Amino acid sequence: MDKVKVFAPATVANVGSGFDILGFALEAPGDIVEMKKTQQKGIVISEMISEKSLSCVIEENTAGMALVNMYSSRDLSFGIELKITKGVNPGSGTGSSAASAAGAVFAFNQLLDDVDKFSDKELVDFAMDGEVVASGARHADNVAPSVLGGFTLVRQNDPLDVIQIPTPSELYVVVLHPEIEVKTSDSRAILKKQIQLSDAVKQWGNVAGLVAGLFTDDYDLIGRSMEDFAVVPTRSLLIPMYDQLKEKAIENGALGLSISGSGPSVFALCKGLESAESVKKVLVETIEQTNLLYNIHISKVSTEGCKVI
Amino acid sequence: MDKVKVFAPATVANVGSGFDILGFALEAPGDIVEMKKTQQKGIVISEMISEKSLSCVIEENTAGMALVNMYSSRDLSFGIELKITKGVNPGSGTGSSAASAAGAVFAFNQLLDDVDKFSDKELVDFAMDGEVVASGARHADNVAPSVLGGFTLVRQNDPLDVIQIPTPSELYVVVLHPEIEVKTSDSRAILKKQIQLSDAVKQWGNVAGLVAGLFTDDYDLIGRSMEDFAVVPTRSLLIPMYDQLKEKAIENGALGLSISGSGPSVFALCKGLESAESVKKVLVETIEQTNLLYNIHISKVSTEGCKVI
Repeated sequence: MDKVKVFAPATVANVGSGFDILGFALEAPGDIVEMKKTQQKGIVISEMISEKSLSCVIEENTAGMALVNMYSSRDLSFGIELKITKGVNPGSGTGSSAASAAGAVFAFNQLLDDVDKFSDKELVDFAMDGEVVASGARHADNVAPSVLGGFTLVRQNDPLDVIQIPTPSELYVVVLHPEIEVKTSDSRAILKKQIQLSDAVKQWGNVAGLVAGLFTDDYDLIGRSMEDFAVVPTRSLLIPMYDQLKEKAIENGALGLSISGSGPSVFALCKGLESAESVKKVLVETIEQTNLLYNIHISKVSTEGCKVI
Repeated sequence: MDKVKVFAPATVANVGSGFDILGFALEAPGDIVEMKKTQQKGIVISEMISEKSLSCVIEENTAGMALVNMYSSRDLSFGIELKITKGVNPGSGTGSSAASAAGAVFAFNQLLDDVDKFSDKELVDFAMDGEVVASGARHADNVAPSVLGGFTLVRQNDPLDVIQIPTPSELYVVVLHPEIEVKTSDSRAILKKQIQLSDAVKQWGNVAGLVAGLFTDDYDLIGRSMEDFAVVPTRSLLIPMYDQLKEKAIENGALGLSISGSGPSVFALCKGLESAESVKKVLVETIEQTNLLYNIHISKVSTEGCKVI
């Protein structure tokens, strides 16, 4: 194969109680990565199609940095050139940097001969290199679901230990992106470095409940296990109307609502499309009380990660 | 039914990373609770057969206190008299108080007419009343597995939310009880009231991994998810040779080793009986280097909780 076109999904990290360890893939939106082999060795990003200006310099680009170690760990006679069409809004908190990195490593793997191909989990590991550009740290809570699809547990970053968790078939997501800028550095800085042991116990009770709910298709258990005691109480202060959005969503049938990644997007999990549509409606009514621009959409939780299109 | 004889199993709480939320039942040992109806209303503990002296006064007895609210919540024309034969060593850290409380509420439920019977989860809730006598707090991490069997997740104490987690069929436990006294109050007092967020994240990554491993019979995942970062580093200081016991157990094939409840017992999880026997051997060799009395035994993780015998 000399060229390939790949879709890499947006993702929601944390999922309420699973701060820094859980994430899931959305059916839409996603980034498109087109990649072809070149005679000249090395990696070139020829084009970035994005509403926001993003660098094509390898060292400043998440997709570029995700490819550097991957490319150099095989002795190849060809180079690669890629074009990225951003579908995931940078700064939205739905894994924009991760989608580009995931799509890039997945696309590159398609161009390799079978003997040179990497495992899915190795792809996650390479994609983590891209996250360093965006956040300064190798973390997998977005790249893992973007590559693998469904729900993923990142039990440990180093060495990487990723576990796939089943996805109940009627799980829908409403993602609301209020168009404010929350810098990841602010969103990190606001976190308390220590938490009460009593809160930590409640949190891992919920994490365990969330995982058990996903394994047993127990939607109520998923919902009541989403509450976070570690980061949402402070991070939500950066998100306008957070408490009202959460209250309205749950009053209207959402299983739960929390912050997507480090925000500013929030997401509600719902059982079934009809429920998601009701929840979307009240979230719109609530956010309309501000003068903020926003966008909102419904997606199924996707069991597919990156795919050739 | 006018009388009944019940076996209530010993239990291991915490299970490594699941501090205060996870527990499982052992096949042996257990307490025996014999109960019969009496003409005189009220609750009488007629006999306690135990190596250690335990009170038969209702308010000072875990089984007694577990029965008080349960008895008074039904309008009954009869009283109950019970005899307890302790099989679970008080102070061992394997749910001795919980076994008596669990056995008592389970036995009493057998004596009730169908219309008056309580659900299994209500029994757990009543048995928690007994734990107040032993530890000053209503907690369910031992009574839940003793009543229900298998692995249980106590997502929340109040209101009680208990979830049953599957038990892989080849899971064996080696329980070593070094005969030293660790007061529950000391074992609580040594805990830090706050933990680093970074440690808490590692802990709930492990809790999630442990639950996922139990759902998928992934013994390796269970083992690597047992590590605790919250309480074992301090509590293990109260247990002689803890680090050596753990190292030897894992070197010799144990999936992991941790403290049972608040100690002083330690338990190793193993895949298969043969592995458990090897691990038992090295734990004996290690503890023999001290002059402590101890006892050690192998049990399967039991999928049965309380049962009529």
